[in-house]
Amino acid sequence: MGVLTLDDPIVFMRTDCHVCRSEGLSSRSRVLLQSGGKSVVATLYQVASEMLDADEAGLSEAAWDQLDVAEGDPIVARHPNPLASFAHVRSRIFGSRLSEVQLRDIIGDIAERRYSAIETTAYLVSGSSFPMDNQEMHALTKVMVELGDTLTWPGRPIVDKHCVGGLPGNRTTPIVVAILAALGLTIPKTSSRAITSPAGTADTMETLAPVDLDLRTIRQVVEQEGGCVVWGGAVRLSPADDLLIRVERVLDLDSEGQLVASVLSKKVAAGATHLVLDIPVGPTAKIRTSAAAAALASKLEGIAGQFGITTKVVVSDGSEPVGFGIGPALEAHDVLAVLQLTPGYPTDLHLRACTLAGAALEMVERAAPGTGVAVAAQAIADGSAWLKFQRICEAQGGMRAPPVAALTQPQLAQSGGYVTAIDNRKIARVAKLAGAPGIPAAGVRMFARVGEKVSAGQPLYTVHADTGGELQYALDYVSANPDIIRVGDQRNGARPTIGDGND
Amino acid sequence: MGVLTLDDPIVFMRTDCHVCRSEGLSSRSRVLLQSGGKSVVATLYQVASEMLDADEAGLSEAAWDQLDVAEGDPIVARHPNPLASFAHVRSRIFGSRLSEVQLRDIIGDIAERRYSAIETTAYLVSGSSFPMDNQEMHALTKVMVELGDTLTWPGRPIVDKHCVGGLPGNRTTPIVVAILAALGLTIPKTSSRAITSPAGTADTMETLAPVDLDLRTIRQVVEQEGGCVVWGGAVRLSPADDLLIRVERVLDLDSEGQLVASVLSKKVAAGATHLVLDIPVGPTAKIRTSAAAAALASKLEGIAGQFGITTKVVVSDGSEPVGFGIGPALEAHDVLAVLQLTPGYPTDLHLRACTLAGAALEMVERAAPGTGVAVAAQAIADGSAWLKFQRICEAQGGMRAPPVAALTQPQLAQSGGYVTAIDNRKIARVAKLAGAPGIPAAGVRMFARVGEKVSAGQPLYTVHADTGGELQYALDYVSANPDIIRVGDQRNGARPTIGDGND
Repeated sequence: MGVLTLDDPIVFMRTDCHVCRSEGLSSRSRVLLQSGGKSVVATLYQVASEMLDADEAGLSEAAWDQLDVAEGDPIVARHPNPLASFAHVRSRIFGSRLSEVQLRDIIGDIAERRYSAIETTAYLVSGSSFPMDNQEMHALTKVMVELGDTLTWPGRPIVDKHCVGGLPGNRTTPIVVAILAALGLTIPKTSSRAITSPAGTADTMETLAPVDLDLRTIRQVVEQEGGCVVWGGAVRLSPADDLLIRVERVLDLDSEGQLVASVLSKKVAAGATHLVLDIPVGPTAKIRTSAAAAALASKLEGIAGQFGITTKVVVSDGSEPVGFGIGPALEAHDVLAVLQLTPGYPTDLHLRACTLAGAALEMVERAAPGTGVAVAAQAIADGSAWLKFQRICEAQGGMRAPPVAALTQPQLAQSGGYVTAIDNRKIARVAKLAGAPGIPAAGVRMFARVGEKVSAGQPLYTVHADTGGELQYALDYVSANPDIIRVGDQRNGARPTIGDGND
Repeated sequence: MGVLTLDDPIVFMRTDCHVCRSEGLSSRSRVLLQSGGKSVVATLYQVASEMLDADEAGLSEAAWDQLDVAEGDPIVARHPNPLASFAHVRSRIFGSRLSEVQLRDIIGDIAERRYSAIETTAYLVSGSSFPMDNQEMHALTKVMVELGDTLTWPGRPIVDKHCVGGLPGNRTTPIVVAILAALGLTIPKTSSRAITSPAGTADTMETLAPVDLDLRTIRQVVEQEGGCVVWGGAVRLSPADDLLIRVERVLDLDSEGQLVASVLSKKVAAGATHLVLDIPVGPTAKIRTSAAAAALASKLEGIAGQFGITTKVVVSDGSEPVGFGIGPALEAHDVLAVLQLTPGYPTDLHLRACTLAGAALEMVERAAPGTGVAVAAQAIADGSAWLKFQRICEAQGGMRAPPVAALTQPQLAQSGGYVTAIDNRKIARVAKLAGAPGIPAAGVRMFARVGEKVSAGQPLYTVHADTGGELQYALDYVSANPDIIRVGDQRNGARPTIGDGND
């Protein structure tokens, strides 16, 4: 019927059709549809109008694609088998631990799209309220790997890099991949789209080159260039993960256990042997204290080790956004400025990328201890990282220029003084309300930094949007939240430096 | 468009329509629709076919009814305001307590249908994993009352009765109301439909008389007859509650805090001064141990007291289903048999109803301590309760005969011996798979009792269904679960008696 519902398979049937009557189906029933060898569990919406004939069923695009049917094909509709694995979720809500077998049942059913949004939500929240233990995290990671495809590579080390997120504009990945591949390392990087942020690495990279590559093409790109930056969801490295992320995005929630498994399942499936982990810490970042960062780091290192992956954690300053751009295209412009060392390039993004690349170089003994950052910075300075990045983009299908928004609106300082704080979550919210990540050009471009002096009337940031409705929507939120950027009389205390983990 | 989605308002718009483009709306966006003075937040499904013109929007029946529009009326569609209250849910998931103000925000948004199913699920699970404290339960109850209508009565006492559920066939309410009203008490009883069970009291009562009465009619019935048994959802006594129950039903979950507030908000709104609470305890009932029953009872009594309601808790035997029928009409037949003392009437249901009615009579000093059960039983024996019940049904709109299922299938004992256990949850599942409560005639009729001797080939229970599909679906589950009724060589140990609470 041409109805777009994202991943949600929906079937429309007449209330008075013989299938609804003989099977006792009612609206919102879950229905198993079968055609040829394919099947899908869909939500039934009954129709009491002449939109359909009594012997017709209408399908949403998701149901249509999964059933792989053509107009007029016969389909069979009946009650699906009871969702036995949901009993595990229910007992998890009330505090029981989940075994590997139970997790395989749950994640398998989610990957097969047997869970409705309600059931997926209950599973996700059950693991947030009452955190998973190490055994559960290990089992969940294992199960998520086993349900998908895996990549293997002839040599080693295979390097990977991950940031736990929560810091707008922290788009180091394309730069780190370019540096490490330029220096001869292998880094087959799969990234996700935004979960709760205005842009994921895959969203940003997509404004520069295609990212939805299949496994064969990823292998070709990496064999040829040593690295890639692709969307993990296009390959089935951890097929349940993107379905979970869709719901997490609505909830603006990701739980520690799910986060560990989501990150590591993709690293294991991608064949990584060494992993650099960026954990930004700040009062409005995802991780808010050094203690929380240390706890998460130890969990990630521990589980990664059980899968043979050596991990180096870099705790970084998460007190304010990184670079200037927040939103897919705006962040891509920052990436390009760092790689090309364009005058006025964001020095914080440059330093962060070199710090992470340097940690990787030292970990795999391609740089002496203490020299990694300098080796990485040299690869940018001599242009080799920029050259490598262009070659990677070409290999992925062709480099392109990131889009520019149709509408921009600056936000001015109401009074002069020092910038004392920037609320990461609220500024990210502005970027999302303006349309990011769905609209690649939308977002926010920051001018102010914590500790900087500003005069009244000076622009603090600019909102970028493609439509008037979205621009207004973001501006309404800005008006209602005067504390997004705080300006005070006194310069704030010392700011933490990268790598020290104070907050 | 005649699309039935239960409570879910849905709007269909063309992907290329100017509203989607200018507002930046995408599939599954939440959209605020306005027409005349009415508004509704709906989920957008985009349509890429010719089903709609570019300047048309199609509405599901729920959206149509809430907007109160006619074919061709203009509607305005835009982004809804951000759902600010969901931030409270998110912090609750991670362990923060909710204040009365925060709960009013959340429950108000739910009552206004601003929460999607995903968000409602997250709220419900957040209160299950990490139970609400007394302050939260009190505040939630208060808020749920304030958001709805209330009933007031000239005299007092106003009696009410509630069972926390979990025990199939435990349909005492119509009998208790008939007894107490026959004895001159006032009992304006509002009941819910099934949450996780094959029948709620409102579902059962509806097979005997109309239950969706408005406030004015309820007042008339109670003024005339002293009592009623109506569906609480038809009046706005606690308007968020039925929306929450819809999601709880999918999850097969109700949390203690939500349960306390759900029960008490309706009692407070109905103007109750005295409450008898039935808490069945058994290994497969909702409450499984006497300790859990005592904890729940103390919470309910404590919160009820804060609203001026005196409570008497009756902990009852929850080790097996009550009466013979499980399912709306099958339970109604049991109610009629008890009230009419038909030969072979279910004695357990009779005793339970008299016990609860007796507790109410003693609490309001209409029976001397220790004599309540006998006074209640006398009202059945002398026919006054049956007469009163018929008058109540007539006053509610006319008494009718409960339907009988088209198909029945007996399940026979595989071997002889004693019935040692009946799994309440599994037998309830059979009734639900057979179509209860949606199909009123569907369900299970029990023949076996724990402790009884059965011979091989003797029927243990009969499955009732209206369609072959549903009958088969229930029978498949029966085949896969041979332990629904256990038959062993030895009679089980002593069974707990009503009121003692052992399990």
